[in-house]
Amino acid sequence: MHSPENALDCCIERELVSRAQPVIDALRVAGLSVATAESCTGGLIAAILSHAQNASECLHGGFVAYTKANKAKVLGVDRDLLEMRGAVNVEVARQMAQGALERSPASVAVSVTGVLGPDADEDGNPAGLVYFAVCREGAPTVVSRREFGEMQPDGVRRVAVLHALELLYNSATVTSAIL
Amino acid sequence: MHSPENALDCCIERELVSRAQPVIDALRVAGLSVATAESCTGGLIAAILSHAQNASECLHGGFVAYTKANKAKVLGVDRDLLEMRGAVNVEVARQMAQGALERSPASVAVSVTGVLGPDADEDGNPAGLVYFAVCREGAPTVVSRREFGEMQPDGVRRVAVLHALELLYNSATVTSAIL
Repeated sequence: MHSPENALDCCIERELVSRAQPVIDALRVAGLSVATAESCTGGLIAAILSHAQNASECLHGGFVAYTKANKAKVLGVDRDLLEMRGAVNVEVARQMAQGALERSPASVAVSVTGVLGPDADEDGNPAGLVYFAVCREGAPTVVSRREFGEMQPDGVRRVAVLHALELLYNSATVTSAIL
Repeated sequence: MHSPENALDCCIERELVSRAQPVIDALRVAGLSVATAESCTGGLIAAILSHAQNASECLHGGFVAYTKANKAKVLGVDRDLLEMRGAVNVEVARQMAQGALERSPASVAVSVTGVLGPDADEDGNPAGLVYFAVCREGAPTVVSRREFGEMQPDGVRRVAVLHALELLYNSATVTSAIL
């Protein structure tokens, strides 16, 4: 729990905030700029990235697409796909990241769509199942699927944020070596 | 500081998260759905709202427009306005909220643009100056200007989030009585 003394200077868990700087630094070194496309993380990845020094040099911002309707309208995710296969699958993750890349000035985009739980989603996807995608101009799209298993919703949120930051970091570092 | 024991179940300060439920409840009662348009808060308002029970019934998501380029491309804020008057003024706030309303399925949108500090922004706006707007279908746009004064960046972020949530709550409750 936060004590009253530090409640005013810590909106987001410090451990999460501490992960932003290496990602922003790597993006800057690689000459990349980023936009996020978030469903279950609700904007938290962008908010964390915005804490880093010099974030405004390479964080354009992002999209929070919480409902299926917003995924379709804001990010251009195929409505038939959402209707037939739900919002939690690799193709939706891919289209979310692609949509964010096309709709922002960014050169790399990361997406997250999954089920925080504690219950399965309306389409029967289990709690803890999360898909990710990273789209970068001129590079193959990277996708990732994680089954984080049973934990509290905030636990899934947390590990999903960390994995997304890791994918972004990898995109800015590992991938740049092979492009 | 978080203790290791609770680090896994609290990404965002609990006091902030606790403010989400009344807002989501008020929006549901009023039959409204919401999208955010965030600059300096970086997605934190959407992330907080997503913590509430039944959030998916009325939180479509939002837009994080951290750079001027993203404000123009993603939310349609006038480029000349951004160029001539910077990103921190009432008209940019109004256009951000209006843009979010037009570009999402939501019936109400809240925007935030300001200077977290500790330094003034590139256009000379002082740390702690934040503008807000709430656009709701069929209602006059509500704008708000706050000078939060000198505090740490996370302090400005925090009071800006709280004020935005208050404006949303008011839009869903007070305004509905006079429409």
